[in-house]
Amino acid sequence: MSAIVTFTTDFGTEDHYAGTMKGVVLNINPEAQVIDICHQVPAYDVLEGALTIAQAYRYFPAGTVHVVVVDPGVGSLRRAIFADTGQHRFVAPDNGVLSFVIDREPHVTVRHITNQSYFLRPVSNTFHGRDIFAPVAAHLSLGVSGEDVGPEISDHKHLDLPTLRKVGTQTIEGAVLKVDKFGNVVTNVTPGDFAEMLGTGAPLRVRIGSAEITELRHSYAGAKRGELFAIIGSMGFLEIAVNQDSAAALLQVKPGDQVEVTTRG
Amino acid sequence: MSAIVTFTTDFGTEDHYAGTMKGVVLNINPEAQVIDICHQVPAYDVLEGALTIAQAYRYFPAGTVHVVVVDPGVGSLRRAIFADTGQHRFVAPDNGVLSFVIDREPHVTVRHITNQSYFLRPVSNTFHGRDIFAPVAAHLSLGVSGEDVGPEISDHKHLDLPTLRKVGTQTIEGAVLKVDKFGNVVTNVTPGDFAEMLGTGAPLRVRIGSAEITELRHSYAGAKRGELFAIIGSMGFLEIAVNQDSAAALLQVKPGDQVEVTTRG
Amino acid sequence: MSAIVTFTTDFGTEDHYAGTMKGVVLNINPEAQVIDICHQVPAYDVLEGALTIAQAYRYFPAGTVHVVVVDPGVGSLRRAIFADTGQHRFVAPDNGVLSFVIDREPHVTVRHITNQSYFLRPVSNTFHGRDIFAPVAAHLSLGVSGEDVGPEISDHKHLDLPTLRKVGTQTIEGAVLKVDKFGNVVTNVTPGDFAEMLGTGAPLRVRIGSAEITELRHSYAGAKRGELFAIIGSMGFLEIAVNQDSAAALLQVKPGDQVEVTTRG
Repeated sequence: MSAIVTFTTDFGTEDHYAGTMKGVVLNINPEAQVIDICHQVPAYDVLEGALTIAQAYRYFPAGTVHVVVVDPGVGSLRRAIFADTGQHRFVAPDNGVLSFVIDREPHVTVRHITNQSYFLRPVSNTFHGRDIFAPVAAHLSLGVSGEDVGPEISDHKHLDLPTLRKVGTQTIEGAVLKVDKFGNVVTNVTPGDFAEMLGTGAPLRVRIGSAEITELRHSYAGAKRGELFAIIGSMGFLEIAVNQDSAAALLQVKPGDQVEVTTRG
Repeated sequence: MSAIVTFTTDFGTEDHYAGTMKGVVLNINPEAQVIDICHQVPAYDVLEGALTIAQAYRYFPAGTVHVVVVDPGVGSLRRAIFADTGQHRFVAPDNGVLSFVIDREPHVTVRHITNQSYFLRPVSNTFHGRDIFAPVAAHLSLGVSGEDVGPEISDHKHLDLPTLRKVGTQTIEGAVLKVDKFGNVVTNVTPGDFAEMLGTGAPLRVRIGSAEITELRHSYAGAKRGELFAIIGSMGFLEIAVNQDSAAALLQVKPGDQVEVTTRG
Repeated sequence: MSAIVTFTTDFGTEDHYAGTMKGVVLNINPEAQVIDICHQVPAYDVLEGALTIAQAYRYFPAGTVHVVVVDPGVGSLRRAIFADTGQHRFVAPDNGVLSFVIDREPHVTVRHITNQSYFLRPVSNTFHGRDIFAPVAAHLSLGVSGEDVGPEISDHKHLDLPTLRKVGTQTIEGAVLKVDKFGNVVTNVTPGDFAEMLGTGAPLRVRIGSAEITELRHSYAGAKRGELFAIIGSMGFLEIAVNQDSAAALLQVKPGDQVEVTTRG
């Protein structure tokens, strides 16, 4: 069994938080490989954390344990959960940060982490990444079973995701999911959502901010400098991009803002 | 023996510096696990570096070698030192960056690193992380003994730490130690410092910036949005926080600023 | 053979990109050690990426595979290449990002990566780091040979580097190569370039921005606060620095700006 433990958090890389969690894992399982996926999820941004882990986990070997800590409710009564897809395993607060993973996987078992014998003691009220999530992940990487971690639950939290709405046969109303490091604007619209519209042969328009975009491109590099265009990005969603510039800055849009995909004139 | 080598530096992650040090360690000990604790200590900020390593090191396995490089005096006559607590080992410039570690540990041996056979050659005057600290750490991770690294010393530098002063029985004057990524304001006041004051039953007030704080909470999540409160944080110090917002920005305070904990009206 | 795979990219650490590439490598070679050299090369800045990998690679063990992805042309017809120095191996887009490595090494074989059996399928048009470079690197770390990756080429791209020009015997005109995290201004002038000028005994002057610098120092720490000075830095180039401050901010210079080293009055 693989002994890889990954981290996806909003702890940043300026303080001791990320390093401390790695120490906790290695102290329990010195053979573990600890891998940073991302510590720069925007603070408290559960949706962004959910997107980040959902994009990355499938590429890791079966058996990997993913520690996902974006946890505005730390110290409250929110539960700690363990999710197991049969291939991939996750520990996280029960706040919806695993929503995309759970939505995508056909079989997921979710458990309430209750077995305190795997926690560091005492447990602080402010750093469960160190005191609960990292040590539980380390024990899981050593072969501890899900049953041993806590009882199965079915009422785990699910994020209220930005909705996608079809308006007639010619229009989809979606939303901006995230803006990446390059300023690419990732929407919640997938190619499947507008396949029928494309099939009609009518030209596709994307309305976002005050712009209307009519170019659908296959790569960033094909576009002229400064030209806004739509593209199916590597995350599997429709993105709005500008070659070597920030579409988000140009459009002045942010997560949650509306996007319309239409074949109406 | 564990062959984990960690890094706590102000080298940032924008340049080749951090990566180069990892290469140096792996070239000498390809079996080492190289772990980033933090490369974003503010430039030249020895106190912040000292806090970061002091918070993280205890969670790593015995035998780990910690490379700590916040080194405004690189190229001057300041010494390179090796500190060994019996469990944890450190290489660092002799500028006080290990002060909190040394203060906390009952038995620490400190040595002047003089054995140049463990250095890369030639040694630059500007990047001892690469030329001295990383290679010495790698050799230590391979089993080289402290005696072999250099002679024991007792006059290593100690940081002038922000002081804590009791004024009568009702007031403690302390200082801000650091502001973390979330804007939490970490002070140098510990629960032990005001245990007696709490015992009197009189309500505790924390004065900082132009604010007076009377709430002492057990978790971030319990507070109302925007409300300033005090909390015993995961570092073991009194912190001033705001639920999902930056207390430091709200209070306009920075490391070194004064904090008063009092039961006076 | 070492199974170390490193990453030097402009993907940043805010998104899933860097973590996903590590997953891809580990999924193919779970025994690989994945090492971040740098993910914060400025977006699309091929010259900066070229400098970063050129400074770091030599310190890694022989056999290391370096993944270098600064790739403004992703999705266009630019080739993916594999370079092998006999000791160090690289996968990268064919855009000059390996120029400094190739210039420095006496024997380098460069191949066009054409064997799609090592790619993830389907290959996206926007994230070849995940779909081509990481999986090819992982297979190389498992022992796949260069011949197996694709045919040798000799017309790989070379960066147009800032030029160095000698004007008579008393003056060198060079350029700023990069500004590091500390604000040190790294030029493309090496000590060998002005050795003869120094030999004349005439005092050396460095003209940059609107400043003329006459101090050539051996370390940062020797200088007065606020004083601009020249120094041979750890990268092997002439740098302009200020002790514990940013020379780049003080001089208002950036990569590409002109530098003059002269013994003329």
